[in-house]
Amino acid sequence: MASWLQIPKNSPFSLANIPFGIITSAKAPSRVAAIAIGDYALNLNAFASSGGFSQLPAIQPHLNVFNQPTLNAFAALGRPVHRQVREYIQSVFRADTPFPQVLKDNESLQKLALLPLSEVTNHLPMQIGDYTDFYAGLNHAYNLGVLLRGPDNALQPNYKHLPVAYHGRASSIVVSGTPIHRPNGQILANPTATPKVPTFSPCKRLDIELEMAAFVSTPNDMGKPVSVNNAEDHIFGLVLMNDWSARDIQAWEYVPLGPFNAKNFATTITPWVVLIDALEPFRVPSLEPENRENVLPYLREKRTDNVFDIPLEFEITNQGGQPTTVSRSNAKNLLFSFPQMLAHHTITGCNLRPGDLLGSGTISGTEPQTQGSLFEQTKGKEPLKLADGSERMFLEDGDTVVLRGKAGTEGNYVGFGDCSATILPAVKLEF
Amino acid sequence: MASWLQIPKNSPFSLANIPFGIITSAKAPSRVAAIAIGDYALNLNAFASSGGFSQLPAIQPHLNVFNQPTLNAFAALGRPVHRQVREYIQSVFRADTPFPQVLKDNESLQKLALLPLSEVTNHLPMQIGDYTDFYAGLNHAYNLGVLLRGPDNALQPNYKHLPVAYHGRASSIVVSGTPIHRPNGQILANPTATPKVPTFSPCKRLDIELEMAAFVSTPNDMGKPVSVNNAEDHIFGLVLMNDWSARDIQAWEYVPLGPFNAKNFATTITPWVVLIDALEPFRVPSLEPENRENVLPYLREKRTDNVFDIPLEFEITNQGGQPTTVSRSNAKNLLFSFPQMLAHHTITGCNLRPGDLLGSGTISGTEPQTQGSLFEQTKGKEPLKLADGSERMFLEDGDTVVLRGKAGTEGNYVGFGDCSATILPAVKLEF
Repeated sequence: MASWLQIPKNSPFSLANIPFGIITSAKAPSRVAAIAIGDYALNLNAFASSGGFSQLPAIQPHLNVFNQPTLNAFAALGRPVHRQVREYIQSVFRADTPFPQVLKDNESLQKLALLPLSEVTNHLPMQIGDYTDFYAGLNHAYNLGVLLRGPDNALQPNYKHLPVAYHGRASSIVVSGTPIHRPNGQILANPTATPKVPTFSPCKRLDIELEMAAFVSTPNDMGKPVSVNNAEDHIFGLVLMNDWSARDIQAWEYVPLGPFNAKNFATTITPWVVLIDALEPFRVPSLEPENRENVLPYLREKRTDNVFDIPLEFEITNQGGQPTTVSRSNAKNLLFSFPQMLAHHTITGCNLRPGDLLGSGTISGTEPQTQGSLFEQTKGKEPLKLADGSERMFLEDGDTVVLRGKAGTEGNYVGFGDCSATILPAVKLEF
Repeated sequence: MASWLQIPKNSPFSLANIPFGIITSAKAPSRVAAIAIGDYALNLNAFASSGGFSQLPAIQPHLNVFNQPTLNAFAALGRPVHRQVREYIQSVFRADTPFPQVLKDNESLQKLALLPLSEVTNHLPMQIGDYTDFYAGLNHAYNLGVLLRGPDNALQPNYKHLPVAYHGRASSIVVSGTPIHRPNGQILANPTATPKVPTFSPCKRLDIELEMAAFVSTPNDMGKPVSVNNAEDHIFGLVLMNDWSARDIQAWEYVPLGPFNAKNFATTITPWVVLIDALEPFRVPSLEPENRENVLPYLREKRTDNVFDIPLEFEITNQGGQPTTVSRSNAKNLLFSFPQMLAHHTITGCNLRPGDLLGSGTISGTEPQTQGSLFEQTKGKEPLKLADGSERMFLEDGDTVVLRGKAGTEGNYVGFGDCSATILPAVKLEF
């Protein structure tokens, strides 16, 4: 698909993508909806206000959704509307657009609404009511299980029967680019000593978790589970997510109720929500398709190509250094799909709301350097080398971490942009 | 403290209380702020609009907080303002009020703003951003530990060092009176069989958890922990909470990330938020005051009378039957106080927002029939008897559960009202 707009061939935001986000700019300091295309953001509020949607009558009654500080209202309009809007915007940007008067030949609207990405600030795309983090990355769960319990008992008996999950912290989800303070907390300086007495310390085992996450669009009422085969229509789209993890705080606190302070200090997501429709060409089966016979009927999807082939990677750059790609994984490394996660989440009658976020769990491959966390890769004892020769077991202050994910081929990438953050030193506290 | 308003001697809403909530009524179908007093609610929006706050100049710039569908904006004004408003309302209702013209002698405002509780509908008092449930009820943690691991290892090594907690589900928190569907989910019909294969079933071990919960008022920014000695000023007030628990779903799912579907279907709270100021006369030390020396300095409160002596109870009524009081406990049965919970929650830099809810964990005593859950009381094998002779191991469809809590003495009770719900049958699903 060619565009009249110059789009770099390696851009994650090709004409095949059209992801949605929330921006401000010097010209428009109030948060508004936008899409990303190439090196530009299209301010959808400015676009709508100037008749940009004149050729899409169906969206006319809803144009106010673009003049809001989050995408919740747009998401709540439902998948058919998202699809229409995305396809309409694609048609507007196509080289052979049937509506050249809308934007291609409309220089004043281009000046008003088409802003270089370098001049806009991204914000959280949704107001997140509840954030749930699953554990559907089979290889990650296995790798961690081996580290904690050995290979024979690596996976718990429940693991392949249900998408394991825990409730996460919504308030500390931040958009890519927000610096992250290393957390303070209780750790065991000597885990094998008896009795176990914790010390107060900055986290010494700060880790990355490479995840995908899905935003909910269509809500369900309490007591009304969503069927697994309808669940995808309840999803607005996907983002990349870094579920920062303080491994030493986690090891001490997590029995019996799961991780809490080890995760609550921050979670970073990409600002642009990629619609499921944009990912359609990249469908593949989830891991262990034969597990379909293993799960209870409420988790059996009709379609078997229920996850997406999206190459993922993360890199670490030490302060003033060069970036080092530490790991390359793929979003297809999931045992359960997002529709299965959503169906399981609601099977009790739990209500989901527009803007709720479902994390996949860490996504690791099976080969060396395909793990989605440092702990899996270094096992806490085999440091990895960065480009400048320095070593890392876990993250150090000043490190910048970038996750990336991009499906497709040159000129037609469907990607997520950078999921980036720099680690700041722990806050100094006195008691 | 005597009032010119007739207040029943056993009312939880004496003049010493003045709890805040959100109501609608036939006269005022939009949600507005209110306080409860005796058998009445005072519509604070109507009261404010008619000059009711004329004798409290400090609140004048903020009167719009009462004309909102939640108390979040009022809570965010901070503890000194809540205190002024509560004391002013007490002064207005006192028999010897210095401002008789405001309400006592103002029949038209009484008619407008003073509504029988029987004619108002209560709603959730706050928009809840994040809900965290702690596990600070020492006796409950011990009782459960004995059931699961025996008396020697009942408490985990971390238990007395930190207030254990997990993130809970905010979307399914409902106000007292909302019926609760028994959840469906995965359970092990035969937990000792190998391999473990779950079945899909309505929960067969539906349980109560008797808790107190604190609403956050004053926010803290990410990276800025709240000191334990300032933490109480970040709390708006307390409610009673029933953290419904599906024990069989929980047993299968909860390793390694904690309870998820076992809790996400519903949590019930009382509609009236009781300010900490109203509970001041009931301060007592938390359990095991000597544990103060055990905890790290960031958890050491200066004050030792950091929990409240509030008798609690719950009753079960089977369909068409008589209520049976099943358990009597007390809110003082906590190892950690709410300020300690809040300080621990934020020590990593986690940001709390107005409206966030912190549950205490189940509050049990040490004597028979003082347990805050059925599982502790029946141990899953010793049924308790209801007044009509029927037996209960866990809850049955049609049962109505009411939690109550009330501190003080006749005529001066500071209470929470009923935290009530009826159990509906599981939703029938077909696959």
